Amino acid sequence: MPITLTTTQPDFDARFTALLGAKREDSPDVDAAVAEIIADVRTRGDQALIELTARFDRLELTAERLAFSPEEIAQAIAQVSDPERAALELAAERIRAYHARQMPEDAQWTDKTGATLGWRWTPVSAAGLYVPGGLASYPSSVLMNAIPAKVAGVERLAVAVPTPDGVINPLVLLAAQIAGVDEIYRVGGAQAVAALAYGTETIAPVDKITGPGNAYVAAAKRRVFGRVGIDMIAGPSEILVIADRNNDPDWIALDLLSQAEHDESAQSLLITDDADFAQLVIKAVDRRLETLERRAIAGASWRDYGAVIVVRNLDEAAALSNRIAPEHLALCVSEPQRLADQCIHAGAIFLGQWTPEAIGDYVAGPNHVLPTARSARFSSGLSALDFLKRTTLTRMSPEALHATGPAAETLAQSESLEAHGLSVRARLDHLNR
Amino acid sequence: MPITLTTTQPDFDARFTALLGAKREDSPDVDAAVAEIIADVRTRGDQALIELTARFDRLELTAERLAFSPEEIAQAIAQVSDPERAALELAAERIRAYHARQMPEDAQWTDKTGATLGWRWTPVSAAGLYVPGGLASYPSSVLMNAIPAKVAGVERLAVAVPTPDGVINPLVLLAAQIAGVDEIYRVGGAQAVAALAYGTETIAPVDKITGPGNAYVAAAKRRVFGRVGIDMIAGPSEILVIADRNNDPDWIALDLLSQAEHDESAQSLLITDDADFAQLVIKAVDRRLETLERRAIAGASWRDYGAVIVVRNLDEAAALSNRIAPEHLALCVSEPQRLADQCIHAGAIFLGQWTPEAIGDYVAGPNHVLPTARSARFSSGLSALDFLKRTTLTRMSPEALHATGPAAETLAQSESLEAHGLSVRARLDHLNR
Repeated sequence: MPITLTTTQPDFDARFTALLGAKREDSPDVDAAVAEIIADVRTRGDQALIELTARFDRLELTAERLAFSPEEIAQAIAQVSDPERAALELAAERIRAYHARQMPEDAQWTDKTGATLGWRWTPVSAAGLYVPGGLASYPSSVLMNAIPAKVAGVERLAVAVPTPDGVINPLVLLAAQIAGVDEIYRVGGAQAVAALAYGTETIAPVDKITGPGNAYVAAAKRRVFGRVGIDMIAGPSEILVIADRNNDPDWIALDLLSQAEHDESAQSLLITDDADFAQLVIKAVDRRLETLERRAIAGASWRDYGAVIVVRNLDEAAALSNRIAPEHLALCVSEPQRLADQCIHAGAIFLGQWTPEAIGDYVAGPNHVLPTARSARFSSGLSALDFLKRTTLTRMSPEALHATGPAAETLAQSESLEAHGLSVRARLDHLNR
Repeated sequence: MPITLTTTQPDFDARFTALLGAKREDSPDVDAAVAEIIADVRTRGDQALIELTARFDRLELTAERLAFSPEEIAQAIAQVSDPERAALELAAERIRAYHARQMPEDAQWTDKTGATLGWRWTPVSAAGLYVPGGLASYPSSVLMNAIPAKVAGVERLAVAVPTPDGVINPLVLLAAQIAGVDEIYRVGGAQAVAALAYGTETIAPVDKITGPGNAYVAAAKRRVFGRVGIDMIAGPSEILVIADRNNDPDWIALDLLSQAEHDESAQSLLITDDADFAQLVIKAVDRRLETLERRAIAGASWRDYGAVIVVRNLDEAAALSNRIAPEHLALCVSEPQRLADQCIHAGAIFLGQWTPEAIGDYVAGPNHVLPTARSARFSSGLSALDFLKRTTLTRMSPEALHATGPAAETLAQSESLEAHGLSVRARLDHLNR
């Protein structure tokens, strides 16, 4: 049974705060081990990768076999069924179309002083995408990371994916191919992040690393941050469903369970303005949990971190949602757009009962890499912008320098930066001659 | 004497690579001390801030005196001279105008399946700005950090600035007032970052922290990253000037020294296609170094990290610039726009001889908080976007779900996420009834 709260309870606020603050993830301290692995890869390159892969993935490689060959890729993806291939292609097309619209415009203008100002966006030259192996090896995540990079114009996109005991999910290779990935390496863990950041004899270094991973991968990304860019460090997944009584309780239960089945640390929250409906959803969840394949995981998540909150009205729901800042926010209410306008902190919003969150995981088009753990307060899901950077442009005319230079000189003097002031003054003196 | 290289030297590439890789900064390992300070502030709140401020800044505070009062602010800024106030106001106006153009548009569209997709930008609710005390206390940096936040619509903007021995730069307070800062606290170091991230009895927590600082501040920002958003971790400043012979060597020397005078670890590089001009600039630098106020700092930076590179032509200059990915790139050549198009990795580009880099530090309009240490390969200067986050929006119609749902179901099955598939299937079954 998940926690059930109502905003009319006298101690609601304390209970809600406790729910918000609940730690859902053990972060094992792997930092020392990761530091050692990174140093090893920096020093010994390919040889370190080969030894670490033998140790962690029980796989004997050579430098030549670090990368999947075109033949290996072709052979693996030949096993993919036609419906799976078609589904990946549909997803890729829709993700591409959505992210293409994110491409920002360059700008340049001349202001009244005669200064020409602007900015220019350019893609990162090379990006690396980490793809987990084993259970959490999701082809949809390959699309969600790789397509924005290619839309942004990244020339070289390398994937690193561990293949424990040599096993690879053919759908991951197909997704990489559909997305236009250029290189695929069978290395994982902190060693893969180190190789992408610093390069080895075989793997050229990249400028930006994205993609999910375990505690080792997360710690490695945190360590190489600065040397390369990274995306967010993602925590366990979350959904908040706000639903009124005009919903099928089973649909809402399945939306909650879609999140819960990811991970025992996932969190599924329901806010409703109808206490009876809340009970119907709880019953529907229990019923589905009887047969669900991943019922052990989903049940643990729902029991330990699930919560149902009954509110007086939807304004209260919006206010609570803003304190939660959910990764996924599903609005199953009669006027979802109105409620969405009030919910200002959320990674992704799904409007209306015909928009199950799962549609966003695969085929809707927006990215499914989203800010977790309340970080939607200050960050955004992955986008084409994450693979672009902006250069500011300034061109002063003599007139513009004449108009603004004296102020720059004054500020330079007040900051005791004499050369700054002189670099302006020398030019102004020339103009005033 | 700085290093002098020419691309015709047989060992040029090795020397250039060594120059690129030169470590310019000692990073003292303060992480353990910072972890302790953060834990202390989290546990004891205001009291920890008061004790740490007494210890590090030799200043006795009370909880009531953590924030500057309106009277204290008014009294301090009354000391600012009229030209300084006017210069700050001109700078603020120009920075505001530039950053206002960065505000991105929301989008919403309906695709051929009937799915309504889009995104929405919203500001971070509360931001904290760290301002160093003492020597590196730059009012221009207050404007450069605070104005983008206010342009983005941040409601609550708090500044933390240490006041060693109680000393505050009145221009910092005036800049904060002009920029619309809401709260100013006289705390610094890791304790200030901890207070902004976690909150104390007096200081409400923020969602994003920006601003430069020493090794303690940088380590603290790295540690609270995730709890709150942070801007970049900035390294020592750099400039690359690409100049042809048609320049006054003294102007170029002053541009190089503007960077060198910041810090002994700063780096000033000149690339020119004229060996004689290179010698003239080196002589001009030496001449200016005889009298410059900060000649000890600027001289050490130029001697230890400065470099002059003679190239065969400007195409070579652009290629080297792209390997450097400079924070500041000044193009003092006859066709600067053409060269700018080739220089794809740079934080900010200054075009033409009338655009000294110092103009960008103060009054041009673009931000002076820029990516250092080659990170312009993957990151951008501070902007209004850093104080906004994007929520993706998805609304499926029954028709859109009908068109895309089966593919989502297929992918969910292939990822063994049954509830994901069922949440789509339950709705499709209803539609097919």
